[in-house]
Amino acid sequence: MNKRLVIKVLGVLMLIEALAMLPSLGIGLIHKDPRDAKAMLYSMLPLIAAGLPMWLLAKPSENNMRAKEGFVIVALAWLQLSLFGALPFVFSGMIPNYIDALFEAVSGFTTTGATVVTDFVNRPHGVMFWRAFTHWIGGMGVLVLTLALLPQMTGRTSHLVRAESPGPSMSKIVPKMGDSAKILYLIYAVLTVIEFIALIIAGMSVYDAAIHALSTAGTGGFSTYGASIGAFNSLAIEIIITVFMVLYGVNFALYYHALIGDWKAITKSEELRWYLGIYLFSVVFITIFISPMYGSVAKGLRYSTFEVASLVSTTGFGLVDFNTWPQAAKALVLILMFLGSCAGSTAGGMKTIRVALLCKIGVREVRRTFQPRKVQVIRFEGKGVEEAQLSQIAVFFFVYLALILLGMLLISLENRFDMQANFSAALTCVSNVGPGFGAIASDFAGYGSFAKIVLSLLMLAGRLEMFPILVLFHPAIWRKG
Amino acid sequence: MNKRLVIKVLGVLMLIEALAMLPSLGIGLIHKDPRDAKAMLYSMLPLIAAGLPMWLLAKPSENNMRAKEGFVIVALAWLQLSLFGALPFVFSGMIPNYIDALFEAVSGFTTTGATVVTDFVNRPHGVMFWRAFTHWIGGMGVLVLTLALLPQMTGRTSHLVRAESPGPSMSKIVPKMGDSAKILYLIYAVLTVIEFIALIIAGMSVYDAAIHALSTAGTGGFSTYGASIGAFNSLAIEIIITVFMVLYGVNFALYYHALIGDWKAITKSEELRWYLGIYLFSVVFITIFISPMYGSVAKGLRYSTFEVASLVSTTGFGLVDFNTWPQAAKALVLILMFLGSCAGSTAGGMKTIRVALLCKIGVREVRRTFQPRKVQVIRFEGKGVEEAQLSQIAVFFFVYLALILLGMLLISLENRFDMQANFSAALTCVSNVGPGFGAIASDFAGYGSFAKIVLSLLMLAGRLEMFPILVLFHPAIWRKG
Repeated sequence: MNKRLVIKVLGVLMLIEALAMLPSLGIGLIHKDPRDAKAMLYSMLPLIAAGLPMWLLAKPSENNMRAKEGFVIVALAWLQLSLFGALPFVFSGMIPNYIDALFEAVSGFTTTGATVVTDFVNRPHGVMFWRAFTHWIGGMGVLVLTLALLPQMTGRTSHLVRAESPGPSMSKIVPKMGDSAKILYLIYAVLTVIEFIALIIAGMSVYDAAIHALSTAGTGGFSTYGASIGAFNSLAIEIIITVFMVLYGVNFALYYHALIGDWKAITKSEELRWYLGIYLFSVVFITIFISPMYGSVAKGLRYSTFEVASLVSTTGFGLVDFNTWPQAAKALVLILMFLGSCAGSTAGGMKTIRVALLCKIGVREVRRTFQPRKVQVIRFEGKGVEEAQLSQIAVFFFVYLALILLGMLLISLENRFDMQANFSAALTCVSNVGPGFGAIASDFAGYGSFAKIVLSLLMLAGRLEMFPILVLFHPAIWRKG
Repeated sequence: MNKRLVIKVLGVLMLIEALAMLPSLGIGLIHKDPRDAKAMLYSMLPLIAAGLPMWLLAKPSENNMRAKEGFVIVALAWLQLSLFGALPFVFSGMIPNYIDALFEAVSGFTTTGATVVTDFVNRPHGVMFWRAFTHWIGGMGVLVLTLALLPQMTGRTSHLVRAESPGPSMSKIVPKMGDSAKILYLIYAVLTVIEFIALIIAGMSVYDAAIHALSTAGTGGFSTYGASIGAFNSLAIEIIITVFMVLYGVNFALYYHALIGDWKAITKSEELRWYLGIYLFSVVFITIFISPMYGSVAKGLRYSTFEVASLVSTTGFGLVDFNTWPQAAKALVLILMFLGSCAGSTAGGMKTIRVALLCKIGVREVRRTFQPRKVQVIRFEGKGVEEAQLSQIAVFFFVYLALILLGMLLISLENRFDMQANFSAALTCVSNVGPGFGAIASDFAGYGSFAKIVLSLLMLAGRLEMFPILVLFHPAIWRKG
């Protein structure tokens, strides 16, 4: 492993994180809150103190980055961002316990939105902004990771995204990545600004609009209110956020195609059709079951369009408490927690393309039972999919569920909450959704430090599509060579 | 499809089922219970009335059986056995509602052991014997299916079992199947008789010993008492049943190897090592967590050895209520409900070999992340496993879980029980375990007819390794040709 290169890159990322804390510092100064200034400044110090020498002194013998280095950097980057990103919560006194603060930061950078904050009164504005900003940074990181980095590091996700994958040469990462990344940043930033302005027009304060625009963009879910979006009681705000949650669940490569006028790529996107199909089916299903409870179809539709968007986009904003819904609606909520949105979006979960392909493989397997010799190629987006990739997707699903069950087992060791809460906690964290069932309907404050560390690892594993984080636990990665 | 052949075989099976009702009739006559005589005789009539003409009049143009016919026969056989096997419950007045009785019969023939019976006082002896006998018949059917029929019908399970698979020629099914089936019947019957005698020696009545020996053999779980094995309060009985539950979870091909003196096959069996490893780990883990609750390690060990054996063998006998255990122990119980025992045993579940291979594939996939070009063959039982088979196993897992989630969604439509009960109901039925969590800790009586039909289909799908039952829902199977 080219350790010096890893150190150098991580050093640069630390300096970037220090820079990313400046807006929060500014907001603190505007609101004249000494807690913010203290929190942000104290947190920037160790980042600069460690990042600067790492950047300047590490002299990699070569700049070639292989898959090994790439995955280690990705995994350590998220870990490091979170370890230091937790500091403002501690220094401001908002979340005094470091493990709690780390959980909050991991939840932020992985765009999960599971929180340990239970009291939202008189919180430092700058630190609360930082909290939402971690979502935005995390979402951007994921876009670059899945659309630009991963396809270059290995061939594994090349089929999962529509972005131009520039071949196997690892030394070309930086220049090529730069191009795609710039376009992605731009789309991401423009969408964020549009939502920000729309929310202000709909009546939100500038501060709340910024927080919720950042939170939606990363499909995170942190809000400034305990009741989340329910606190605004505004149909206009709900509609804006619903639309943007759905938009952020779309493969960003499609926006790129829209920009260059290639509308055919969008109308022909099979993943988009599955995504919207799942969304519409779920809205209708849930509306049917919750409307009696709310007294009218209009209300049922209002709540289901929002909540389903929040679930499939893995944002996790809340409008009403789905824990009070009839069992059929709750069962679908549980299933939606697995799915996620399109690959190449900021959403978490299994991703629509994997779900669609798994369904196709399942049906084929039934057919194979009585036609064992017939060759049946599975097609997606009009092209035949390689068997090796189908196999990888099925294995991905197993690893996904194995991690959820293992996570549930580990957090059950604390013996605090029941099986429903523990299972949904593990699921909602791996899928980066946020809220769950029962004891974790609104927050994760009740778990102990051990469970919070386990759930943090699950959030990271889920966010990075399992394997980069699991790689860190494989001994071979740390061997010489 | 060769429909006449299907009809003829089903006709023969109906006559066999009528014959299988004779012992229950005899027990009814011994106990001089008119309910039994009425129930068994009335049930035999339609079987003979329909079976005889089907057998005699259907003239298949050819006797060749292709995979298509094989799977349709297997699926319809289990369905038909259950449809008629439910009649004694109705005619005796023990379970007056036919859907409830059908659920009980499906649960019997699939060796699940989930029951709708809540009151065990003054039950007709013959019908209760029939209830346990369905487990025994089901267990035998599964052995023949997985060890003799399936490997011949398709190549798909040839690697999953150690039995001699006699090549692809479908016309040879009957003679070859005859040989392996006879040996299997013999082993199965001898084991049942040994347990029967052991239970009598341990102090059970002859009747109870017969019921519980049949129930254990099929890894079913129907008992004559509401408190299941807990009703006997006898360490000797618990130990005997524990040992036999573990034994019935072993691949029966290994007993065949033992008979011919091939001990190397047993000591070298990787699946057996995994199976016993999972068993021992689970016993230790659960003992640690439940011992404080029962006041001593001896009691903790006594209960955990029994309950874990009951879970991994998917028998579902109860000694204590695992619903009262600490969350960590309960979480492991939930995981054990997925696993099942060795392939080629009478147990349900995913099967140890699949679990072991899934773990190996998962680890390889992690390794592949940073060594994408290195070829890594997965070995089991000393031999390399084909990629196509690994892929099938991963897809099997997806279909398994998809059915559980779909089943949970469907039974949630009744809105009777909570998510924990519904999820575990779907899981315990697909895995053919029997008891579950919460509302279904001891029986399934609380579900409505719709949920009982859904759960019956899940039991059948799980028992027949998913695909034969799913095949019935695929339109292509019913097309001409």
